[in-house]
Amino acid sequence: MSDLSHDEPYNSDPIAELIENYNELNSSVIEELTEEPSPLEFMRYVAKNTPFVVRRAAKDWKAAKEWNANFLKDFLKDETVNVAVTPHGNADAPTPHPTPESPLVFAQPHEEDQPFPIFINYLTSQSLLDPAKPIGEVRYAQTQNDNLRNEYLSLFSHVPPSIPFARIALDRDPDAINLWIGNQHSTTAMHKDNYENIYVQIRGQKHFILLPPICHPCVNEQPLPSAVYSRPQQPSSQTTTTTKEEEKPDLLRLTVSDKKKVPFPTWDPDRPFENETEYSCLACPVRVTLHQGDMLYLPALWYHKVSQSVDTDGVCVAVNYWYDMDFTGPLYPLSTFVRSVYKRDAQDTGDSFEQDAAEEDHA
Amino acid sequence: MSDLSHDEPYNSDPIAELIENYNELNSSVIEELTEEPSPLEFMRYVAKNTPFVVRRAAKDWKAAKEWNANFLKDFLKDETVNVAVTPHGNADAPTPHPTPESPLVFAQPHEEDQPFPIFINYLTSQSLLDPAKPIGEVRYAQTQNDNLRNEYLSLFSHVPPSIPFARIALDRDPDAINLWIGNQHSTTAMHKDNYENIYVQIRGQKHFILLPPICHPCVNEQPLPSAVYSRPQQPSSQTTTTTKEEEKPDLLRLTVSDKKKVPFPTWDPDRPFENETEYSCLACPVRVTLHQGDMLYLPALWYHKVSQSVDTDGVCVAVNYWYDMDFTGPLYPLSTFVRSVYKRDAQDTGDSFEQDAAEEDHA
Ligand SMILES: O=C(O)CCC(=O)C(=O)O
Ligand SMILES: O=C(O)CCC(=O)C(=O)O
Repeated sequence: MSDLSHDEPYNSDPIAELIENYNELNSSVIEELTEEPSPLEFMRYVAKNTPFVVRRAAKDWKAAKEWNANFLKDFLKDETVNVAVTPHGNADAPTPHPTPESPLVFAQPHEEDQPFPIFINYLTSQSLLDPAKPIGEVRYAQTQNDNLRNEYLSLFSHVPPSIPFARIALDRDPDAINLWIGNQHSTTAMHKDNYENIYVQIRGQKHFILLPPICHPCVNEQPLPSAVYSRPQQPSSQTTTTTKEEEKPDLLRLTVSDKKKVPFPTWDPDRPFENETEYSCLACPVRVTLHQGDMLYLPALWYHKVSQSVDTDGVCVAVNYWYDMDFTGPLYPLSTFVRSVYKRDAQDTGDSFEQDAAEEDHA
Repeated sequence: MSDLSHDEPYNSDPIAELIENYNELNSSVIEELTEEPSPLEFMRYVAKNTPFVVRRAAKDWKAAKEWNANFLKDFLKDETVNVAVTPHGNADAPTPHPTPESPLVFAQPHEEDQPFPIFINYLTSQSLLDPAKPIGEVRYAQTQNDNLRNEYLSLFSHVPPSIPFARIALDRDPDAINLWIGNQHSTTAMHKDNYENIYVQIRGQKHFILLPPICHPCVNEQPLPSAVYSRPQQPSSQTTTTTKEEEKPDLLRLTVSDKKKVPFPTWDPDRPFENETEYSCLACPVRVTLHQGDMLYLPALWYHKVSQSVDTDGVCVAVNYWYDMDFTGPLYPLSTFVRSVYKRDAQDTGDSFEQDAAEEDHA
């Protein structure tokens, strides 16, 4: 009977109230732990769906001690790896490319297999050539398909097979363990995943911008036409890259698919006055930079944008562990609810460039 | 990048979708554990805001072994205790009593101090006299103010000072430990508390009907005028009960306060076609009966209605531990959001008897 009170005043904008209430109760400064949490301590963060960072948690991993550009080049000298190729480091990102339905498309990378030494030489030399602007196309090993237990299996023993506190707390093994190798010219656009994520920096730095699931109304999700980069057909068909193309990234052709639409955030907290919604200004992004050996808990359904800085070799390397989230309980249906209410409100008021696209899509 | 999919069809009723999604992902049959969970196992239930029951968990407590009507009467023979007195066992319950604003009021009990032996004799004899219908006024010791560490301190050593798995998991001591002594004629109306609740049955049975926080749109919360029962003034002022009044519960006078309104659920899952909202039919109430020694985890913000059955002595006795909930994370603001969206929708469509009352209230 502790919940009795005068009836509170009628708030005409539940979405603004939601974001404000959340901001009042939660810090936008990430919690920093000095050592790994126990499984129980971790579960408390899972329960409140709140991120934390553990500085230097992975400093003693063989990966953190030994991996660098030369080590990797040597270790993987005979391997061929999948590489995402884009003109601007914009794999899986909203990209300006006007179509009848939308000024932006969801650009997927051209994927190709490359000998690992060629790939990493490309990264390091591009990185050092002009640190600020990519000369030539941008490459990123970012397959997110459990690649560390597949393509990169030979490196897997250099990291733990699971993160003990997460494995014990969540009572499951990781669904995927991913290796990320890129340079400063790649950025991962704001998105969310249905995973509890333990993200570990090995070389260089990653700069995360995080938004909680309740910030859906801030990120301006739009149904973007799906598009994919490809290399124009060569006279002699060959799978590896030619120098000519590397130097002219515009030769990557972007093909839009008419059928498939991908609902995707289009607001970027780094450009707050572009593609914003009326709620974007209420978002309090959590910003955290991971340095070598740092470990981030990125809770399920949190939006994250990730950019990178390279080490002295000119590469950025990270490993992450995805654990299936628990769909029971209220968080998942409530996150869908926020999305549905926002969408209904937007359609009622006829807001934004979603309108036509959404109608097309549902026809 | 696991969350890419075609844009889903536009659902015009986010609230119905929320309740349906929740029902699809969560069982309405409570989980039964055979032994107490570890702190970590408990934290998993807290994380998913999901109840469970542990059968016979408290069977070895001194309270479970020794407390019965005679033991308590003897143990507390010199004590005076606070008793909630109502005509129909309706302490803190929506009660028909038409006012200009509302057909129901929120009826608070008449509270008075009674010698414990008189109180318990009253409970047992009333219980056995007519098991189905109360003869005379209904009494319930239900102060919910940490009474087991205050009024009933002498009994406190018969129960654990905290529930170890909850204390360790939540990293806090209980905010309140409450003793409940009544008979079958008292019912606690559907309501929610901002507490993680560990509820332990000592004698008799309690019958819980539970609804998750997302079911706010089902419970038809209304701003009810606050009212309180009192005994009409006696010529000779005396604090204990007279036989005459006991036999004529209608002599309890219900006084409505003009000023204070209490937002309170008015839908009762046991009478589903009275005071229902358009969403009540979507609710899947979780029903569980606690027997002697059973322990229930009732998660924060869950709606609960509680009725009782007596033991062979004619009493029902329980103890519960309230732990402050964690207001950080998304659950609390999202629960408020559901309430605000429901309220806005109801006001937009001009539904239900809230309308006038709400307007009065905010004038
Ligand atoms: O490291 C990146 O570029 C993106 C990481 C990411 O999106 C993830 O771990 O889910
Ligand atoms: O036992 C009862 O009558 C009600 C219990 C209750 O509402 C609670 O423990 O919060």
